[in-house]
Amino acid sequence: MTIDYQQILEDIHQEIQPLLSQGKVATYIPELSKVSPQHFGMAVYCLDGRSYMVGDAQQKFSTQSITKLFALSLAFEREGNAIWKRVGREPSGNPFNSLSQLEYERGIPRNPFINAGALVINDILAQRFVQADIAVLQFMRMLSNEVKIDFDREVAISEEKHAHRNSAIAHLMKDFGNLHNPVDSVIASYCRQCSITMTCLELAKAGSFLANHGTIPWSGNKILDSSSAKRLNALMLTCGTYDVAGDFAFRVGLPAKSGVGGGILALVPGELAVCVWSPGLDPAGNSLAGVMALELFTTMTARSIF
Amino acid sequence: MTIDYQQILEDIHQEIQPLLSQGKVATYIPELSKVSPQHFGMAVYCLDGRSYMVGDAQQKFSTQSITKLFALSLAFEREGNAIWKRVGREPSGNPFNSLSQLEYERGIPRNPFINAGALVINDILAQRFVQADIAVLQFMRMLSNEVKIDFDREVAISEEKHAHRNSAIAHLMKDFGNLHNPVDSVIASYCRQCSITMTCLELAKAGSFLANHGTIPWSGNKILDSSSAKRLNALMLTCGTYDVAGDFAFRVGLPAKSGVGGGILALVPGELAVCVWSPGLDPAGNSLAGVMALELFTTMTARSIF
Amino acid sequence: MTIDYQQILEDIHQEIQPLLSQGKVATYIPELSKVSPQHFGMAVYCLDGRSYMVGDAQQKFSTQSITKLFALSLAFEREGNAIWKRVGREPSGNPFNSLSQLEYERGIPRNPFINAGALVINDILAQRFVQADIAVLQFMRMLSNEVKIDFDREVAISEEKHAHRNSAIAHLMKDFGNLHNPVDSVIASYCRQCSITMTCLELAKAGSFLANHGTIPWSGNKILDSSSAKRLNALMLTCGTYDVAGDFAFRVGLPAKSGVGGGILALVPGELAVCVWSPGLDPAGNSLAGVMALELFTTMTARSIF
Amino acid sequence: MTIDYQQILEDIHQEIQPLLSQGKVATYIPELSKVSPQHFGMAVYCLDGRSYMVGDAQQKFSTQSITKLFALSLAFEREGNAIWKRVGREPSGNPFNSLSQLEYERGIPRNPFINAGALVINDILAQRFVQADIAVLQFMRMLSNEVKIDFDREVAISEEKHAHRNSAIAHLMKDFGNLHNPVDSVIASYCRQCSITMTCLELAKAGSFLANHGTIPWSGNKILDSSSAKRLNALMLTCGTYDVAGDFAFRVGLPAKSGVGGGILALVPGELAVCVWSPGLDPAGNSLAGVMALELFTTMTARSIF
Repeated sequence: MTIDYQQILEDIHQEIQPLLSQGKVATYIPELSKVSPQHFGMAVYCLDGRSYMVGDAQQKFSTQSITKLFALSLAFEREGNAIWKRVGREPSGNPFNSLSQLEYERGIPRNPFINAGALVINDILAQRFVQADIAVLQFMRMLSNEVKIDFDREVAISEEKHAHRNSAIAHLMKDFGNLHNPVDSVIASYCRQCSITMTCLELAKAGSFLANHGTIPWSGNKILDSSSAKRLNALMLTCGTYDVAGDFAFRVGLPAKSGVGGGILALVPGELAVCVWSPGLDPAGNSLAGVMALELFTTMTARSIF
Repeated sequence: MTIDYQQILEDIHQEIQPLLSQGKVATYIPELSKVSPQHFGMAVYCLDGRSYMVGDAQQKFSTQSITKLFALSLAFEREGNAIWKRVGREPSGNPFNSLSQLEYERGIPRNPFINAGALVINDILAQRFVQADIAVLQFMRMLSNEVKIDFDREVAISEEKHAHRNSAIAHLMKDFGNLHNPVDSVIASYCRQCSITMTCLELAKAGSFLANHGTIPWSGNKILDSSSAKRLNALMLTCGTYDVAGDFAFRVGLPAKSGVGGGILALVPGELAVCVWSPGLDPAGNSLAGVMALELFTTMTARSIF
Repeated sequence: MTIDYQQILEDIHQEIQPLLSQGKVATYIPELSKVSPQHFGMAVYCLDGRSYMVGDAQQKFSTQSITKLFALSLAFEREGNAIWKRVGREPSGNPFNSLSQLEYERGIPRNPFINAGALVINDILAQRFVQADIAVLQFMRMLSNEVKIDFDREVAISEEKHAHRNSAIAHLMKDFGNLHNPVDSVIASYCRQCSITMTCLELAKAGSFLANHGTIPWSGNKILDSSSAKRLNALMLTCGTYDVAGDFAFRVGLPAKSGVGGGILALVPGELAVCVWSPGLDPAGNSLAGVMALELFTTMTARSIF
Repeated sequence: MTIDYQQILEDIHQEIQPLLSQGKVATYIPELSKVSPQHFGMAVYCLDGRSYMVGDAQQKFSTQSITKLFALSLAFEREGNAIWKRVGREPSGNPFNSLSQLEYERGIPRNPFINAGALVINDILAQRFVQADIAVLQFMRMLSNEVKIDFDREVAISEEKHAHRNSAIAHLMKDFGNLHNPVDSVIASYCRQCSITMTCLELAKAGSFLANHGTIPWSGNKILDSSSAKRLNALMLTCGTYDVAGDFAFRVGLPAKSGVGGGILALVPGELAVCVWSPGLDPAGNSLAGVMALELFTTMTARSIF
């Protein structure tokens, strides 16, 4: 039985309408707060090359933490398991004390998807590439086959101005010997990386290699071996959606990475990548309508990994 | 291509031999410390009714925390989503401060698989059944079609004598109003539940309904609807193996629940349940050889959910 | 220049009138919540035997945590410095996580004036006396020369019914091996100890030996040597007023021990003991009018230790 | 009965000899690690102008955290109680989680003597003076009547290079809005302030106004009113010796402020200021021989505040 993805996307689009006014756009970065919460876009990219879209699926938005997934993939591809000496693989589980957990665990972040972990990954990339942020950008351009993808300099500057908590985290890790580059340059690079702007369709295409055992489906180019891809999927499931990964797995049941810009990239291993965007956030920082859209998607397609 | 499970189990059995001397048998309960770490058993129960075994797969062992999965299934079946008002669905992530997290979160345990959560589930069952522990026992008898499954009274008494930390947890929850029955009776019932003794084959059979969309494969009896079964699978993946669920998902990639007696029950949704037992534990409290056996199992069968 | 204590007490009585309606009577123990917040009494007991009173200085009230000072004095007298192996001498400083600090510090309470520490002291006394609570009662009768001082059985029973947090603390210490008697009996003994009922004048007289280098001023009976008395004074100053000892020292500048019944016993070393009672509490659990009365007392008499 | 301070100092000097080899010189700042732990000096400055010395009492050493007392005095003199909106007055009590406590308390440091609090005081001074560090230096020159007191530029530079934990603290406070000047300039100013080099005699003289109700004894110049001086004394007692203030009060019983350079300045209110220096530290960061010397001093002179 084939699934009519287009029809499903349209049904979802209709069903989530009442939710668009309930989420709250991120305000800690002035540039992000200007986006209307009424936006909603969703794109499916199947491994056979077919794609489906609804709403604002081709409008650019700030990818933010979703870039952590690509930075990690790049670092994992280059450095292999050596990265796990500097960053863990466990859920953080403690929204209330990001610094104290890091302090207790002596500067080793719990996983690469919390800010502390993403800063370490950026630091790792900075030892291998001239500029970590540009390496991530070029990696995402290659994966999505879109050379025009770029940083949003306004957002990057805005983030850097409000990066005091991230600076505190970076200095603490430096104090513990787990940051090798200067704090300021890691912070700046990380802020630029987070400012990368893409569309739902571009992100679904860029992420599809992780649903395809590590190989880019449209080019056959192998990025990671099958086992490594599987392992990043596991990490997305247990740690990809801030402090509510357990709840997200319970409701949606797919590996996913969310960003505070309102995007969520999710995977159905062996079948497709799906990206949803809606800027209104729930209290945990995930797109409110986006989470619901993905829950509807797994219900309507019966596509859960469980 | 069919998989020769018997051959795979035998290959695994051989490969894990060097690990049997490396784990440490749990010592906090005197009764458990008497078991030899040289034991190893593994059983696969396929949804089509076929089963495969190796080593001590038919020797009884103390199921311990694996019973939390069955207690939760029973409570979820009876009370539905109402249970989530009293217990969360997030990984705990804090081996170092079980009480402080509970204190910070005002008596609501992070998930039903940590001791605090299991005590709440026991308390919930105690409001519906005459005795929570007997309800869990009968549920596990029914699921495995083995009427002779029973408590180990020596173990139960031994656990109750060493239950001061669990009593501290229970009193703290009582202080926050999240425990309705007397602390002493909940502790006693919980200790008896943990003492249930079963074999790998019995546990694999008992857990197979969770790999079969909630329906007992050999009887067709529906315990949970498909969506609920999927959700318990998600919970096992994110919270089922103590404080290393992220690492376990990364290495093994299957929903699983482990116990300090050395057993681990894991699921390949839509295909089978697999149970391994080896009493030597790693520092996180999971069976050292058991985790490796499951990692080999997913590699050899290419059966990961990711 | 002699000080007219009577006049000062009367001036204070007048000045604190507006505060009597601002504090909140403790409600966690039903028996305590029945007391009117309008009560105010204050008594000065000078080392030369003269005493001064105002208001309800001769009305009985529930001494509660003030008894911890006498239990500690008794244990210190009997066991000497050996007690410091089981309880610390540092301020707790963490109202928000009484259990997590105890967990982090492996069952050794920060000081003898937090509940965990007082339970340990009670446990120590229970090894030397038939009943710890009766030993404390008899000690306080002797110190105040009042044989009719007694427990309030209603209060003791009421406290025991609401002792779940203290039970959690006791079980946690038992788990760490820092409680030798059964949890239930220590809790019961501690609750009775806290229920001792006395007047301001009786308490000031009972505490006067600590202002007199360890010797009861009216009998010449030496309870502690001078150095030990000095050290308990220091402990009162740094730890005697719950989590605001720093603020209390800043404002009042006297060693003191407060109770949730609204009493505060303070010392001017070498001169006098002063006890104030007013049941309305500030958010930290100290008598609101009582703290102000003591602040006025040190200002008017220029009697600070600093 | 007059006290022969000179004899007492010489007796102390002899008695502490065996301790000189037991402490460990601070190593986190390379410049400090070069000092020999065999140094010992002690000076008493009486309010009547007489002074007494023993050992290296006139050798310069790095005052470090002792400067926090003078920075606080200066800020308190200028801003009064307004400073307590930005910094607390409670002991910190948590050596293990300096950042988590600050995070929990939303960027308000527990007291002005922990690093976080001293950074806030520096930030407050920076709003009133052109340079906070120079203001503190000039204040200490004036109090000791020694115009040649100065920074040690090697130490200041060395500290700034190893200031990552302080930078983490400052950025976290900035994130909470409790730091108004740029992080880098506050850190630099704070490091210079800590590098001020003085002798025991100079420090005792500089601190004597706090033992003299706020008035410089040798000039009659009033720095603080009597009540304010008393309150700073109280703060020294409850918070002045890192995380062992309770123990220090218990053993020594005097208001004091210690520094990681091995100095401790203590006060006998109404009588004298005493400063001891010995670079070998105990595990809490206080001078090992210094604490013992002060304990002997209070015992031999019977001068405790309790």
